[in-house]
Amino acid sequence: MKSIGLIVEYNPLHNGHAYHLQASKEASGADVAICVMSGYFLQRGEPASFSRRARTEMALAAGADLVVELPYAYSTQHAHWFARGAISILDDLFADEFYFGSEAGSIQDFHELDSFMQNHDSSLQKNARAYLASGVSFPAAQANAFHDADPPGHLPDLSKPNNILGYHYVKAARQLEAKINAKTIPRIRAQYHDELLPKGQSIASATAIRKILAGHADVTMLHPYVPRQVYEKIEHFYENGQPMHTWEAYYPYLQLVLGTRSPDALAQIYEAEEGLENRFIKTAVTQPTFQDFMDEAKTKRYTWTRLQRLAVHMLTGTTKVDIDKAFGDEARPRSVRILGFNETGRKYLNTVKKRTPLSLYHRPQKRKNAQQMLDERAARAYYAIFSGTKRVEKWKHEYAQPPVYWEEGD
Amino acid sequence: MKSIGLIVEYNPLHNGHAYHLQASKEASGADVAICVMSGYFLQRGEPASFSRRARTEMALAAGADLVVELPYAYSTQHAHWFARGAISILDDLFADEFYFGSEAGSIQDFHELDSFMQNHDSSLQKNARAYLASGVSFPAAQANAFHDADPPGHLPDLSKPNNILGYHYVKAARQLEAKINAKTIPRIRAQYHDELLPKGQSIASATAIRKILAGHADVTMLHPYVPRQVYEKIEHFYENGQPMHTWEAYYPYLQLVLGTRSPDALAQIYEAEEGLENRFIKTAVTQPTFQDFMDEAKTKRYTWTRLQRLAVHMLTGTTKVDIDKAFGDEARPRSVRILGFNETGRKYLNTVKKRTPLSLYHRPQKRKNAQQMLDERAARAYYAIFSGTKRVEKWKHEYAQPPVYWEEGD
Repeated sequence: MKSIGLIVEYNPLHNGHAYHLQASKEASGADVAICVMSGYFLQRGEPASFSRRARTEMALAAGADLVVELPYAYSTQHAHWFARGAISILDDLFADEFYFGSEAGSIQDFHELDSFMQNHDSSLQKNARAYLASGVSFPAAQANAFHDADPPGHLPDLSKPNNILGYHYVKAARQLEAKINAKTIPRIRAQYHDELLPKGQSIASATAIRKILAGHADVTMLHPYVPRQVYEKIEHFYENGQPMHTWEAYYPYLQLVLGTRSPDALAQIYEAEEGLENRFIKTAVTQPTFQDFMDEAKTKRYTWTRLQRLAVHMLTGTTKVDIDKAFGDEARPRSVRILGFNETGRKYLNTVKKRTPLSLYHRPQKRKNAQQMLDERAARAYYAIFSGTKRVEKWKHEYAQPPVYWEEGD
Repeated sequence: MKSIGLIVEYNPLHNGHAYHLQASKEASGADVAICVMSGYFLQRGEPASFSRRARTEMALAAGADLVVELPYAYSTQHAHWFARGAISILDDLFADEFYFGSEAGSIQDFHELDSFMQNHDSSLQKNARAYLASGVSFPAAQANAFHDADPPGHLPDLSKPNNILGYHYVKAARQLEAKINAKTIPRIRAQYHDELLPKGQSIASATAIRKILAGHADVTMLHPYVPRQVYEKIEHFYENGQPMHTWEAYYPYLQLVLGTRSPDALAQIYEAEEGLENRFIKTAVTQPTFQDFMDEAKTKRYTWTRLQRLAVHMLTGTTKVDIDKAFGDEARPRSVRILGFNETGRKYLNTVKKRTPLSLYHRPQKRKNAQQMLDERAARAYYAIFSGTKRVEKWKHEYAQPPVYWEEGD
């Protein structure tokens, strides 16, 4: 069985994602498509708009055969760790190839980029440090240093978000000495940060779709941009007055954490560096909304994403020590949660479960490992915005439900 | 000027408190009555039903001349530290006498009790340890050991809450080598834990009064039990939809803290001992209300009060290290916040401010000391239950307002 892997968030899954999934299956001629999907908090430091389970169903509906979880320790992370966690899992599940969408469209160019970065490593690092010292952000320092190294014009442009991820995937596969092969498919139409639904087209950005949801606008507007079964999910997800999983809903909890823990305690949180915890405290106790908080906390030095990730770690109480323990010696996942599969995925799992170095689970042992404890705490933070009874119900169900089994025609 | 001190919570102030205050002034013939009052979280581990400022006004309306704050580091504490903090402040403010209400009514008996406890110290401690080892609570172990020591029958009964406090006040005064003299006045009628308003009488317990408030029952029912000016405060306090300061309102925040911080981090919290943090985590993620949480967490080993105090410290993020720092070398307050005064109180403050070892303040310096930082964090936790804009407003006003100045006839 030929198998491919995709690294996804599907927040929510839209036609662009469905296209990428189908195009990857067709290009590879694969029998099995595996998605490794972030759980409750995403790479850019945001709560997922839809539950892990709802997004698993979206993935299976759109043609995935097996969905596994990218653990929290890797999901809410800088691209380097995000990529390393995801590629490690796909390689350990014996996926033959992984497919990513990119603004640049040639995998050869990514390999050349990776080589270029290695060959210029010391000058790139030195220049990036100099830019950092001048007060710019980490990504800007890297992009400037890259530009100064005068890269050949055909190399992927490292200021585009999907090219950055793609580069880190390719690098991770090399560093992990993975057997998995990298492939890329050019992204179509919607730009990552487009905030408007494009009229008369079928592909909108997830950002634009979330904006409609967060604004409580007419959900039927989303009809042209998402697969039918996903549309039904979206339509039903927020009925019964379920609170929206936006940062604003979590902000009172973030404020409590920042307003009450000691600066020393907050300095232990992962990514709290250079006194950022003090800036966060000062800002949280004076700013009434999360948007105000971010506007006020933002400096040239830190990207929005970097600060949002820190806010997530503050919310979930994730310390530097917690991440160290979850990473272990090798900084790669040793266990992975099976979120869902169809019959093809189930058969595939049977073929790999004896050989894989990963411990596969859907309900963790009572004695959770460090990685699973972080996933559990992330789930608790995620459902904290529900009211009393519902909150503890969600927490109880968290590990009580079996994985999604998707029958064809569901 | 003769001055007396009272140690109060006034949650809220009722006729029994007003009686005690007036009777103390009359018995002493004092010119000045000083109240040292808990801030936002109280000795039994509960949020104050009324703000610090509202309770300051109640105290001044009922005849206090000066109100100062018992810092958080001493207010939400076992009777030993609670008493030590309060007596230390009153002594450092040169109060000549302090008055406490007790079930027993003779101060001589309390001094004899204190001597008896000293004389039997080693056997009492040994026996109390044995009882503790058998699994009973700390207060029960102490009461049993006390009984075994066969105390003379006229000594105050240490199973009554106000006698326990009284004993600790007298002991604290001795240990601090305080100049202040201890006095007691017998309590009248209402028992501490009475939960019902007594018909046809004028004195009800604060517990019964809070029950009416928490149940959103008709506030006019409270008219017979509180002074007129206090009644007006109560009547106006909860208008405009202000959330009730009950534990239930804080429970979602407690759940977030317990559900997301690591057990190691929670073990650092003050009074987290013998693995109580694990019991708290397990209980918080399964119980939908604070009442359920407490019912489930409760064991013979720990009193309700002890567990509620731990819950407060979890909410405010107060660690063992934080309390150590706030206590300093001497475990007594070095600064105290002036909450309010009338003209008499103002004059008294002028006579003591040059002599007192206490740093008196109403707005702390920008660089707060360890004790003030805990007070500030307690205030932040206290106002966390307000909605967005109101929450940060309350936090901002917290130290911006001047002390209450009470004009006679207010």
